[in-house]
Order: sequence, then structure tokens, then C-alpha cells
Amino acid sequence: MTRWKITLEYEGTAFCGWQKQENALSVQQTLEEALKKLTQEDVPTIVAGRTDSGVHATGQVAHFDLAKDFDADTMENALNFHMRPHPVVVLKAEPVSEAFHARFGAVQRSYRYLILNRRSPSALLKNRAWHIIHPLALPPMQEAARLLIGKHDFSTFRAAGCQSSGPIRTLDSIALRQEGAIITLEVGARSFLYHQIRNIVGTLTLVGKGQWSVGAFHAAFEAADRTKGGPTAPAHGLYFENVKYSDA
Amino acid sequence: MTRWKITLEYEGTAFCGWQKQENALSVQQTLEEALKKLTQEDVPTIVAGRTDSGVHATGQVAHFDLAKDFDADTMENALNFHMRPHPVVVLKAEPVSEAFHARFGAVQRSYRYLILNRRSPSALLKNRAWHIIHPLALPPMQEAARLLIGKHDFSTFRAAGCQSSGPIRTLDSIALRQEGAIITLEVGARSFLYHQIRNIVGTLTLVGKGQWSVGAFHAAFEAADRTKGGPTAPAHGLYFENVKYSDA
Repeated sequence: MTRWKITLEYEGTAFCGWQKQENALSVQQTLEEALKKLTQEDVPTIVAGRTDSGVHATGQVAHFDLAKDFDADTMENALNFHMRPHPVVVLKAEPVSEAFHARFGAVQRSYRYLILNRRSPSALLKNRAWHIIHPLALPPMQEAARLLIGKHDFSTFRAAGCQSSGPIRTLDSIALRQEGAIITLEVGARSFLYHQIRNIVGTLTLVGKGQWSVGAFHAAFEAADRTKGGPTAPAHGLYFENVKYSDA
Repeated sequence: MTRWKITLEYEGTAFCGWQKQENALSVQQTLEEALKKLTQEDVPTIVAGRTDSGVHATGQVAHFDLAKDFDADTMENALNFHMRPHPVVVLKAEPVSEAFHARFGAVQRSYRYLILNRRSPSALLKNRAWHIIHPLALPPMQEAARLLIGKHDFSTFRAAGCQSSGPIRTLDSIALRQEGAIITLEVGARSFLYHQIRNIVGTLTLVGKGQWSVGAFHAAFEAADRTKGGPTAPAHGLYFENVKYSDA
């Protein structure tokens, strides 16, 4: 039995998200059908971060176990062949120790969120960035974002459907930068609450628009109450960037 | 009569190129039909750089003349409304002097070319970058590219259908850089020959693959003979970036 770690890139618009669902195509189903074509077996897969419909990935990680031996190049090429023409590709396939676990072994997950901040709509970043017409002021958004770093109760940014046992998370890093009309937010933590990043981004845009002061943002955060937070940013601006493991 | 300068972004995959054609949708036709809806007149448009099918633009410039007055915001919004859902948008619309000419007034045009250099195919850059599996060595490509700077006979990189009066062009700048799997070439000149950039990129990849030495590249360039050059890189990696005008 060999445990495989694979790194994936996908365009989220084409999928109902990571997780298998009735009547809609998921990344997981696409991957598991490719594995079945390769091995003639039902191979369950475990992912580092279950993404929603519309959310993209540039470095998602999953693992699975196979009885039969393959070399890594064959594995990568065969999965990519069988997953065509769906917009998901294996960037790397590597045999790992049986102790590796894509979800529970992760020590840091990084996400990126893209905002296209300009009057005119997007031709090249359609479904790839959140288009906001109202000009956003970056410095107060950066100041507000810095308040989130460290260990906190993130209830203000936790969606109703969150299945985590509690609202406490430790944000390792959060940074915002702007290049032309594109504002990029990068955030890293061991794990996130459901919709945590999209709720943070949605609330930060209120600060960027001047509707909320940094103080109002801070008060909403400290209230630890979702009803005090801002809107949920749309899925299609979010990218699952990469995962770090303790031995990597 | 007011002359308008507009700046455009488009996703080239959806179009047969800039120029109007029978039985295929061009950017020009999309724009001129929007102008007709706005003005009820046939409004001819002149573009800075006629791009081929598949070539994208982030800062294309065109001009046209209108008898009726509009304010700039109305012009931008109305054109964007009428061009939907095609992937072309007006980034800026501005009234300019009658002396402005999008094509003949340009003093520099800048293009970008993207190569995705990795084994696995692309999920997120499909139709947006040239996927090359063979690893490319950047330093010799950079060394070869530097030979092209300045005023030269570019016949080696000139496509058969080129309508220019001669093969002499002055390349102001050419630079290659790599971030992860993405190699970006940026190039600027007052004007280019037909397929000049795509032929340069295709020939540089021979150097990057080690099939050609920098000396062989130089010899092919000095031969001033298209049959001595390398292949034409595909259209979908090319982006028309921007245009400078003498008074801008």
C-alpha cells in the first residue's frame, strides 16, 4: 500500500466545490473518477482544504492510498489525462509516508483573495476577482487587517454552517497590497473557520469604502458576533494557495 | 465633432482578432455595433495595434469621431453596457484633440508574452499562456534577447503576410523574467512587423531548450531571412499592453 500526496490547481467556476455532491461536478469526483480509470478501484481522497463552488486553487493538496505501485511521473500524467477536459490538473504527485495526512497534518494553509477595484468591468479577470467599483482606500484596510493577526475569537467572521468545534483561530499573517486596479489579500493560518476569509474580506471593504472606521471594524471583531460583521465576499475572488506540513 | 480616445481590455480567445471579418466576431465589430446603438450612426474606428485572433489586450487604444456630445462617463458606461456579454471593456474614454491618431500618433507600443513552463498542463492559464513542457533556461534566452535591442533588419522574425514597407524596426526594450513556472517577456517599440514578437518568442524558446546556442540565434538574426528563424509562438500567450503617444 502506498500513500500518495498530490498537489492540484483548479479553476473553481467549473465545479460545485471540492466535495462530492449529487447532480453537480466536484473536484473530488473528477479526481476520484480519474483514479478509478487508472486503478479500477474506488479510491477515497482526503483534501487539505475543502473549497466552495467558485473558489480556485493553485496549490491544493490531497492524499489517497493505492495497493498497486506506480511511478510518480506516470501517476501525474495518467491523472491529468483522465481529468481532461475539466479545469483541474495535478502539479505534482509524490509517494509519502503512511503518517502523512493532507488535512490533519497541515500546519499552515495560505489563501489569496483578488479584488478588481475600478469602474469598468473585467474582460480578463471574469470569475477570477471580485469587481468593486467604489474606490477602496488601502491604508485603513491594512490597519484593520493587522488587528486580526494572532489568536482570537473569530465569531464575527464565522459562517452559520461552520462545523468547527470552536471559534478560536490563530492568524499567522495577513497582508494587502495593490498593483494598478488589483488589490491582493494574502492570509495564512493553521486552519480557518467556514467562510472566515470571505467574511474578513467583505468586512474590510466596508473600511476601504470609508463606511466603517478602523475603530468600528475593531469593535465588530471584538463583539465576536457574526451579526456585527460585514458581508461575505464572493467565492470567485478566492484562491487556495498552498499548504505546509510539519516535515516539509 | 469630437474625437474620442478609448482604452480597451479584451480576452482574445472570443474574437477573430481586432479587424472586422465576414462570419466571425471581431473586437472592432463589437465596438462599432456598440457605437451604433449609442449614436444610431456608423462610426468607423482606428486602432493602435491590430491584434490577431487569440491575442489579448490590457491597454489597447482606439479612436473615433462623433458628431453628438457625450460626457466621458456616459461614453464609457454606454459602450460597456452595449458590448456585453462579450469579453471586451472600455477602461477609459476621453475626448482628445482632432490631431490625435491612435495608430499613426503612437510613439511606443508595449506587448507582454506569457509562457507557462512546467510539466503539468494549465487549469488557470488556459488560453492565457503558451504551455511549454521542456524546461527553458532563462539566462541564454535573456542573452539572446538583448541582441535584438536597437535598430535592425528584423526579416528573420517577419511573417510572410507582413504589409509594412520594410523590415527595419527599432526595439526599445526587451526583458524576460521568471516567477515560479511563469516566464514573462516584455517588449517595447514604436511599431512591430507582422508576427514579429511571436516569431522572436518562438525562436528564443529554441535557445531556452538548448537546441540553439546564443551564437546560432545571433547568426539567424543577422541572416535577415525568415527561413532561418524559429517557429511562431501561439497567439494566446500574447497581450497588447499599452501605447504611448507623444503628448501623453
